[in-house]
Amino acid sequence: MQQQYQSCIAACNACADACDMCFAACLQEDDVKMMARCIALDMDCGQLCRLAASFMARGSEFAAALCQVCAQVCLACGDECAKHQAQHCQDCATACRHCAEECCRMGSTAAA
Amino acid sequence: MQQQYQSCIAACNACADACDMCFAACLQEDDVKMMARCIALDMDCGQLCRLAASFMARGSEFAAALCQVCAQVCLACGDECAKHQAQHCQDCATACRHCAEECCRMGSTAAA
Amino acid sequence: MQQQYQSCIAACNACADACDMCFAACLQEDDVKMMARCIALDMDCGQLCRLAASFMARGSEFAAALCQVCAQVCLACGDECAKHQAQHCQDCATACRHCAEECCRMGSTAAA
Amino acid sequence: MQQQYQSCIAACNACADACDMCFAACLQEDDVKMMARCIALDMDCGQLCRLAASFMARGSEFAAALCQVCAQVCLACGDECAKHQAQHCQDCATACRHCAEECCRMGSTAAA
Repeated sequence: MQQQYQSCIAACNACADACDMCFAACLQEDDVKMMARCIALDMDCGQLCRLAASFMARGSEFAAALCQVCAQVCLACGDECAKHQAQHCQDCATACRHCAEECCRMGSTAAA
Repeated sequence: MQQQYQSCIAACNACADACDMCFAACLQEDDVKMMARCIALDMDCGQLCRLAASFMARGSEFAAALCQVCAQVCLACGDECAKHQAQHCQDCATACRHCAEECCRMGSTAAA
Repeated sequence: MQQQYQSCIAACNACADACDMCFAACLQEDDVKMMARCIALDMDCGQLCRLAASFMARGSEFAAALCQVCAQVCLACGDECAKHQAQHCQDCATACRHCAEECCRMGSTAAA
Repeated sequence: MQQQYQSCIAACNACADACDMCFAACLQEDDVKMMARCIALDMDCGQLCRLAASFMARGSEFAAALCQVCAQVCLACGDECAKHQAQHCQDCATACRHCAEECCRMGSTAAA
């Protein structure tokens, strides 16, 4: 059953990895202060994506509900990352926005 | 700022511990099959409660949104546990229902 | 820097997904009791793999130490899964054993 | 069975909350750059403490092994936090060091 979630699970795993890498890279920037919101959202987004992947892989009753929140967090993290020129932020923004789309579709399909 | 979340964080930690204990005890029951949904919900609820506690302790922008989903999962887990006579299930039901109340209040306050 | 961890991160994500799927499928087996240890190890292994992936992606000081424990858990979960004929167990055993190798290499390289 | 772990579970939950609060407060400091290692260790420590609490509450076969790594991370996080004057860092250092002791005792008892 969980095969239907395959592309969303893959997007969540990829997004979580990108958020974790962006987090670490942000902490090594010269101007860390400028990256503070990015760092905070990277953690929110990375942790939530990993949990959403887990719920989907288990075929949880609450996978769709969790994906709906995950989509919101991915959008916010993607928008914040997109403001910064660093490659790790741009990569993370791309991963977040793709994951937001997948989670959004997953959230609405499953609720139907 | 996160002090306002203190009682909800405590409820989430206590609920997660109760869910993890109930999970392990269910797996040692004679009739494990009867406990299958309880086992699945214990994991969903325990993991989500730990993440919600983390979001609240960090004062995350998405703490309220996550608590709203957490409240739903706590209610479902509490209802399932309440059906079973075993003490670990009854204890877990109590912890889940208290946590659902706290998360529900937290979710609506913060959204205001 | 975290690029050196790429194959181990991928193995951890794949193993976590396999453990979560195996967990859910075990709970739907006719003889759930026979799968009890498999269910418990699936959760240990899945959660630890997701955390190890996260530590590696962040280039954490403790990524190697965590991968050493992760390798042990993967081996135990792989051995348990290998005992059962169900396809989800065989798939999980394969994913666990591959992940154990990757985590083992990662744990020893990084400690050097 | 998991009752024997009660004080270590409580220490892990308290330490995770302290790490998450310290993480958020560090990100709001004027000199965020000075707090970079503290921020990174807060995440490692907070996440690992939550997983260790979960393993103990489930009476996992690998609870002791995970607590041994958790003790190392708690010590490192406690030492880093202790260098900074801010109250959130001092509070976090205290929680980390108490948790390190509990995890160390737990790790060695269980291995016996």
